[in-house]
Amino acid sequence: MTEPKSHLPLTPSNITKAHSLIKSYIHHTPLLTNTTLNTLASTPQSAADLVGTPWEGHSSSGGGGAAAASPRIRFYFKCENFQRIGAFKARGAFHALLRLIEEKGEDEVRRRGVVTHSSGNHAQALALAGKTLNVPAYIVMPSISTPSKIASTQALGAKVIFSGSTEPEREAVKQKVQQETGAIFIPPYDHPDIILGQGTVGLEMEGQYEELKGKAEGKGLDAVFTPIGGGGLNGGVATWFSVPANEGRKKTLVFGAEPSFEGANDCQRGLAAGKRVEAVSTKTIADGLRTPVGHHNWAVISDPSKIAGVYSVTDDQIKKTMKLVLERMKVVVEPSAVVGLAVCLFDEDFRRKVEQEGGEDGWDIGIVFSGGNTTVEAIGALFASN
Amino acid sequence: MTEPKSHLPLTPSNITKAHSLIKSYIHHTPLLTNTTLNTLASTPQSAADLVGTPWEGHSSSGGGGAAAASPRIRFYFKCENFQRIGAFKARGAFHALLRLIEEKGEDEVRRRGVVTHSSGNHAQALALAGKTLNVPAYIVMPSISTPSKIASTQALGAKVIFSGSTEPEREAVKQKVQQETGAIFIPPYDHPDIILGQGTVGLEMEGQYEELKGKAEGKGLDAVFTPIGGGGLNGGVATWFSVPANEGRKKTLVFGAEPSFEGANDCQRGLAAGKRVEAVSTKTIADGLRTPVGHHNWAVISDPSKIAGVYSVTDDQIKKTMKLVLERMKVVVEPSAVVGLAVCLFDEDFRRKVEQEGGEDGWDIGIVFSGGNTTVEAIGALFASN
Repeated sequence: MTEPKSHLPLTPSNITKAHSLIKSYIHHTPLLTNTTLNTLASTPQSAADLVGTPWEGHSSSGGGGAAAASPRIRFYFKCENFQRIGAFKARGAFHALLRLIEEKGEDEVRRRGVVTHSSGNHAQALALAGKTLNVPAYIVMPSISTPSKIASTQALGAKVIFSGSTEPEREAVKQKVQQETGAIFIPPYDHPDIILGQGTVGLEMEGQYEELKGKAEGKGLDAVFTPIGGGGLNGGVATWFSVPANEGRKKTLVFGAEPSFEGANDCQRGLAAGKRVEAVSTKTIADGLRTPVGHHNWAVISDPSKIAGVYSVTDDQIKKTMKLVLERMKVVVEPSAVVGLAVCLFDEDFRRKVEQEGGEDGWDIGIVFSGGNTTVEAIGALFASN
Repeated sequence: MTEPKSHLPLTPSNITKAHSLIKSYIHHTPLLTNTTLNTLASTPQSAADLVGTPWEGHSSSGGGGAAAASPRIRFYFKCENFQRIGAFKARGAFHALLRLIEEKGEDEVRRRGVVTHSSGNHAQALALAGKTLNVPAYIVMPSISTPSKIASTQALGAKVIFSGSTEPEREAVKQKVQQETGAIFIPPYDHPDIILGQGTVGLEMEGQYEELKGKAEGKGLDAVFTPIGGGGLNGGVATWFSVPANEGRKKTLVFGAEPSFEGANDCQRGLAAGKRVEAVSTKTIADGLRTPVGHHNWAVISDPSKIAGVYSVTDDQIKKTMKLVLERMKVVVEPSAVVGLAVCLFDEDFRRKVEQEGGEDGWDIGIVFSGGNTTVEAIGALFASN
């Protein structure tokens, strides 16, 4: 079982507390702007762009079909690819571990240690938090994990224990570790402390945006996009922005984005069906987003007062967007990081919404670049066939 | 001939003036730090690292041979890869064009236009400056240039004229353009206005470093590295830091770095021979550094009171360094941008110097990332065989 059993409620004030707890351990990552991407997003898609999409036949040139959407968009990129271990996951891992120590005391937590299963960014995040706070971290990884990920988790001082690749196999290994060591389970996303930790991304974004624009303007971000994998980041950010509009200030709408390849858009499908999708099997290139949304996360994301919508994009659109970010912004992102930006560039339904609701002013849209953990070889493989 | 004929002297105060002229047209690029790269640079190389290098047999483990150097290094990265058009070249191009307008008046410069030959970053820089200041820009490019570079130069409103690939061929085309249009030649690097413009990189770095460290400390950067191609950037930065040490403040030493592949280290070779090398033919992956150092540039770089040394690195070391920067810092750099960092990581002579002169305190080293103009396909090709 997961501990602690007494959960903090998912509220903005608990995100503020989470930020106080973790801020000396994490990077205050920059909020960047980029003129080229603003221009691209604010240019209607051409007929050629729309061939093979659900919007084929719409184009800016008119000529019979409905015109392509013509939104005005200014982006604010929260660069969690520059976060420690290269992804936002450091926030949740530090928060969960610091909360455990608060509740059980250093001695007990250091004696028992913590355990998780992950072959991705959460493994390194928990390893780093464990190393920093002097708590043994046991990471259950499939034995087929890439050697570089195993090595970098070990380099952070974690003990890596191998398992098979299926859920029951890794669960069995995890339980064995718990029996032998008493280690406390810190799940990758399905836990309030993780969600509150990731929510600090929203807190920082809002502050940085206001600083950039000058608070006098009294206008917040119109919208924020995060990727949805397990839903920790999206659930946390939505919790932060869940305060109602006040003093004439428009509420910041939070949106989620997923890959659509092989049904990886489990959240979008679940929302359509009114029921959480429990399992996903996909090989989307957005490998951080191959997991189904967790229980705690679903409770937030399925609440329409918190999430304004979830969109999905194709792997080809993810590749196009990743190429733009690397070549135009000159920052390295992993495929999972760009799904929100891809929606803004390519999804005509969303773009029409911005055109209609944003009008002449347009929208200021926050985009969370969730991580940057890729390799030059992986980039090469991704773009080799182009 | 190049105009204007009355050249500004290469002095720090003329760089200050250049900065005032151009600063509203360029980005004030960030000065970034990175703990991982500091740690790597401050760790002695192992025996295995040194196999096949001139320092083979030296290693940190001792065992007979001399130990590998053990310097303490903290880096400050000036990110000109985030500059407009993706490289520092925007600075020199804007400065040269603004100076022309100052001297000859807007009307004459707009009537005649400007011309240059470049297949690289200078082409786009001059195109951007021309577009911004409403001056026609004629760019002579070899017809074998990559289509994407031709397209992006044209997208910036420049008129691209094709030539053969040899120096006489492009010179003939350039002269023909000048005869037909009266366009004024703005060379890529061999001109004082270009050198002064690029020198603004040094001015900004020094200010940003002091802001970061708190001026109270009264200590400047110990050293700065820039790449050397034609020598505009290195000559400009060396000019900025050419003020002698004062009030007990140590002078910032300026170093240059070149690729060694197929003799691309023309500057290093020229310094050894006491004579500028006039022609280079190399296919180093650092394609921005395939040119020989210019005349004006040589006058600065061959002055030992301005340049403390020039080092060179192999293409393999450039690739290793580029991989580190993309994967650890998560910023996109072109191969030419990392030669200085490669020296700090791999050159035992330089590392020994830092160990001996920096001692326990070590050195704060400024590294100019000169540009980030590469593509995901080029990255893929570079790292495909690894």
